Amino acid sequence: MRMGEETGRKGLRPGGRSARVQAAVHAAVRDLLAERERGEISVPLVAARAGVTPSTIYRRWGDLQDLLADVALEQMRPDTDPAETGTLRGDLIAWVDQYREEMSSAPGTAMIRDVLASLEGSDPARQCCAISQAQLSVIFARAAARGEAVPDLDLATDLCIAPVVYRILFTDRPMDGDYVRTLVDRLLMSLRP
Amino acid sequence: MRMGEETGRKGLRPGGRSARVQAAVHAAVRDLLAERERGEISVPLVAARAGVTPSTIYRRWGDLQDLLADVALEQMRPDTDPAETGTLRGDLIAWVDQYREEMSSAPGTAMIRDVLASLEGSDPARQCCAISQAQLSVIFARAAARGEAVPDLDLATDLCIAPVVYRILFTDRPMDGDYVRTLVDRLLMSLRP
Repeated sequence: MRMGEETGRKGLRPGGRSARVQAAVHAAVRDLLAERERGEISVPLVAARAGVTPSTIYRRWGDLQDLLADVALEQMRPDTDPAETGTLRGDLIAWVDQYREEMSSAPGTAMIRDVLASLEGSDPARQCCAISQAQLSVIFARAAARGEAVPDLDLATDLCIAPVVYRILFTDRPMDGDYVRTLVDRLLMSLRP
Repeated sequence: MRMGEETGRKGLRPGGRSARVQAAVHAAVRDLLAERERGEISVPLVAARAGVTPSTIYRRWGDLQDLLADVALEQMRPDTDPAETGTLRGDLIAWVDQYREEMSSAPGTAMIRDVLASLEGSDPARQCCAISQAQLSVIFARAAARGEAVPDLDLATDLCIAPVVYRILFTDRPMDGDYVRTLVDRLLMSLRP
């Protein structure tokens, strides 16, 4: 599932010059984010670490916020399909709970904020939603193959993803596994006649 | 309900020097946002327009993002209580629909993004949520006074506010009055035995 520097996101040829530049710049950003305060990071600093010129970065990514959003999206892309538990409910609880845990963490929250801070285009935010919905779709396809009824993808987004993201961004309300089960059961109730 | 330059947010004495500076700086930001691209706005530009020194702004608001978040919050504070329709369902639909419409607009979406972009503290985002919840609380108190059952405030936030904000920030999914009615009816279903 993981795409990006390795497999040619944006149609880059893996191993080509362009892909190598992307890999070096992304790695430089990840390293710098681990070492420094976010406010200290700049395009010249990333360029120096990656061994490219600043103009290479400006040309390819626009400004620093767009680059940070690109790196955050890359990190949000899951390495694997959602865990398989044998039931729709089990798969959903496992996935939403992992999503809640990852996105509530300091790096996870920073990723969401980076995605949203790319002001010039809302494209990174759209991709962020698409990544989550692709995972839910895998879960739903499995359930359908087992003969289970599956909910609507937009409804699942409204009931299971939106509340988690809103709580992270706008509130201090804690979320735990019980909360996630409540969200999932509310969604599954919509399937009852 | 409206607080701010007029009534002394942060405990400012209305009409005092500090309140006048705040009013002038907020007005300068609103004017500049109406005239220019967001990326062209800077602290020195705001200071010149407001007739204060840049250091006054840095001292009081921190950086530009924090100032923009403060102005956005000020604009989010409603001037009036939610419209009164005579029923909980009617009040909720009217309020959520107005929230959806205002926040989906270009200035509304820019306000939400400004609130979130104040990276150094999550306080503006918490206040943004508190403003919405205060409005819902007014609606719920009215309903309770009429003898109607009222839902939990956190549940109302999860079911009626979170999906609207998530769709605005992360998707291109359109929302209309029918969508709002669906959200409100889902919340009211939770009150049924």
